[in-house]
Amino acid sequence: MSLTNASPADAAQAAKSASHVLATLSADARNDALTAIHAALTASRDDILAANARDLELAGQAAADGKLSQSLVSRLDLGKKGKWEDMLKGILDVRDLEDPVGRVTLRTRLDDGLELERVTCPIGVLLIIFEARPEVIANIAALAIKSGNAAILKGGKESTESFVAISRVISAALDKTQVPNGAIQLVTTRDVIADLLAQDRHIDLVIPRGSNDLVRYIKNNTRIPVLGHADGICSTYLEQSADPAMAAEVIVDSKTNYPAACNSLETLLVQDAALNTLLPTVAAALAAKGVELRCDAQSKAALQNTPGLTLADATDADFSTEFLSLTLAVKTVSSLSDAVAHINTHGSHHTDCILTSSKEQAEQFMSAVDSAGVYWNASTRFADGTRYGFGTEVGISTNKIHSRGPVGLEGLMIYKYKLRGQGQVSAVYGEGEGKKRYLHQRLDLE
Amino acid sequence: MSLTNASPADAAQAAKSASHVLATLSADARNDALTAIHAALTASRDDILAANARDLELAGQAAADGKLSQSLVSRLDLGKKGKWEDMLKGILDVRDLEDPVGRVTLRTRLDDGLELERVTCPIGVLLIIFEARPEVIANIAALAIKSGNAAILKGGKESTESFVAISRVISAALDKTQVPNGAIQLVTTRDVIADLLAQDRHIDLVIPRGSNDLVRYIKNNTRIPVLGHADGICSTYLEQSADPAMAAEVIVDSKTNYPAACNSLETLLVQDAALNTLLPTVAAALAAKGVELRCDAQSKAALQNTPGLTLADATDADFSTEFLSLTLAVKTVSSLSDAVAHINTHGSHHTDCILTSSKEQAEQFMSAVDSAGVYWNASTRFADGTRYGFGTEVGISTNKIHSRGPVGLEGLMIYKYKLRGQGQVSAVYGEGEGKKRYLHQRLDLE
Repeated sequence: MSLTNASPADAAQAAKSASHVLATLSADARNDALTAIHAALTASRDDILAANARDLELAGQAAADGKLSQSLVSRLDLGKKGKWEDMLKGILDVRDLEDPVGRVTLRTRLDDGLELERVTCPIGVLLIIFEARPEVIANIAALAIKSGNAAILKGGKESTESFVAISRVISAALDKTQVPNGAIQLVTTRDVIADLLAQDRHIDLVIPRGSNDLVRYIKNNTRIPVLGHADGICSTYLEQSADPAMAAEVIVDSKTNYPAACNSLETLLVQDAALNTLLPTVAAALAAKGVELRCDAQSKAALQNTPGLTLADATDADFSTEFLSLTLAVKTVSSLSDAVAHINTHGSHHTDCILTSSKEQAEQFMSAVDSAGVYWNASTRFADGTRYGFGTEVGISTNKIHSRGPVGLEGLMIYKYKLRGQGQVSAVYGEGEGKKRYLHQRLDLE
Repeated sequence: MSLTNASPADAAQAAKSASHVLATLSADARNDALTAIHAALTASRDDILAANARDLELAGQAAADGKLSQSLVSRLDLGKKGKWEDMLKGILDVRDLEDPVGRVTLRTRLDDGLELERVTCPIGVLLIIFEARPEVIANIAALAIKSGNAAILKGGKESTESFVAISRVISAALDKTQVPNGAIQLVTTRDVIADLLAQDRHIDLVIPRGSNDLVRYIKNNTRIPVLGHADGICSTYLEQSADPAMAAEVIVDSKTNYPAACNSLETLLVQDAALNTLLPTVAAALAAKGVELRCDAQSKAALQNTPGLTLADATDADFSTEFLSLTLAVKTVSSLSDAVAHINTHGSHHTDCILTSSKEQAEQFMSAVDSAGVYWNASTRFADGTRYGFGTEVGISTNKIHSRGPVGLEGLMIYKYKLRGQGQVSAVYGEGEGKKRYLHQRLDLE
């Protein structure tokens, strides 16, 4: 890793060159680098936490002056219970994942002695833009090295001292490994994000780690593909045949388990036929957890006689809002197709759920809803790379190409076609007389 | 299909709505639509060729006035030997490919009764921008319907009459099928390309079909992902251990089989140790096919005594040029790593080849060259979806995400995660005491 004051163009070009070396390293060489980083960070705990304390002090003053939020200060704190240990464990966890590089995903014999192979390989250069959390550096450096990608890191200014301290340690550790110095670069220059986002010749993928506003800004200001999501407006459709207790439990978990998460529930769509049978039970369970309901006229009327509720009138905007708090918009729909149309128009294509006892309704919903995750009788909160069993999570993507939903290491890979021949030329193949035919024989993947 | 004068925003929104219906149709319904299009076009041959003749007449006049190239006029001509038949056969070929929709690519049991499935699904809305070839409409309509994607088509003005005639026939044919009317839209309004490229909310992927300049313009003017390549600067590295006759044959095929193709050879890198042993044989074979060599000083010196050659001095620019003609740039390198560095810097990441008898050199080259296709002892001209056995080709991509190299129907697909539960909630799972653990049990793909 290098700490660079190089121009964004130079940093990007250096990263690209380094990526070409990194892509050829063996799994052992990449894993050894992660072991070395882990050991070096472990040995430098005190220095890094001291640097972090300096960041915290400045941030604490800024918070006292009302210039920073207290939650940001809290995210800065590497000394918080378990955070340092989790960061270190995360490096070894990533190291121990299956190697994503060099997997053969297609083998075809085009002709005798002419074999085509599709092999996974790193994408190239990642640009990671993140906000306050200093532990992201170690996490991202581990993911990048494991997947054979070079990475340029640009962090928020509030954690500069922590970043620099961690980077120095990682840099010294990598010097003794086969990973080239330019493979992981921390850009400490201020106000260079726009310039970095313009390096589409050398940077292949941008991964923002931070607020919705950060992601939206980045998506709107670069031609480089961006992996991530700006919004998480998740909906659940409560169909009339759903089991009432199950529905209440799943909706409560979806909404209240961690309201600030992108996979939390924001809109409840209630079938009209369920307004009087299911909604009161669900609403009471939500109220018991302190959830405020913003209802359309029909659902509000259905809840008039349910005690203990906090009800408000929903506005149109509420149905396109990511509340990230204990507020839930409730809308009445007459059918599955109405629910689907609402979700496909107002949702953010993240994760949406149907609660029903009808397999047919469920399958139709999951087929028709255009989202990364489509669920039947399960909490939207399961939308997460670790919960899906990917071992790590690079982010959650609502893109329609490359990677969708929770993204593991696979999302940092592309492939190349290797063709091994014995001097074959194209001119002898074709449909005409005297021409050879391609065999196109599918071979086993080794 | 509808012929639309709608605004780009309205057309894109209509296509998005239609895509949500199209994505739920069965394979039979999509295939039946292709059968119907084929039958309707067959029945309307005379009308369409008459419309095409009107385009040809106008284009012929424009060519006579020097306003259009004769090669463009030639591409317009649907009556040219075999073109109409190929267009019709192409529709049935696409229909008969394996269904790319609904393939299960991952199944994981998260817990008892909680199963995660990753299933392929259409991307959504494609924007196809193409130039003169009228047969592209039928081809793209077939690919889109087969893959369950909606498509907005915008063709060059020279073939308007042909486009409109073909669209009318396809539109009438689709009216009797389950494919919704908005799923395939031909935009006939002029000067709307910039507006279409701004519809990133509704359009998910742009596929340009035309000149390098068209592709470059599109890549530089949209935030929508673009599938394609602007350049095809393919290189071959002639290593000292290559068989001379094999090398000459492969290089001649790579350069002369179809010089205007993107997978044709543009740069020959010669190892210095092969300058006197291999290069003269190769150069003589190229000269016999009329190839002009633009050489660096070393390679030119090595060829001084070879009779019959057309030699010129290479400029720096020649090593970053896609000649698309019988011109080849020749450069001397001292080693594999020099060759790789040259290709990774000057090439276009399309298809590059090493000619060598050394398996070790070949594997190192294929690992280190950052291109969609990396070949050993085979002509670069094999880089093609049909030759790879994909049955069709949407284009050749030099992107680093989603799809790379020749792209078949798979490149028009993304996936969604379906999670089928029985009321599971996230709060009960975790690492702590009393918490359930995820099973993360990999299941067979059905």
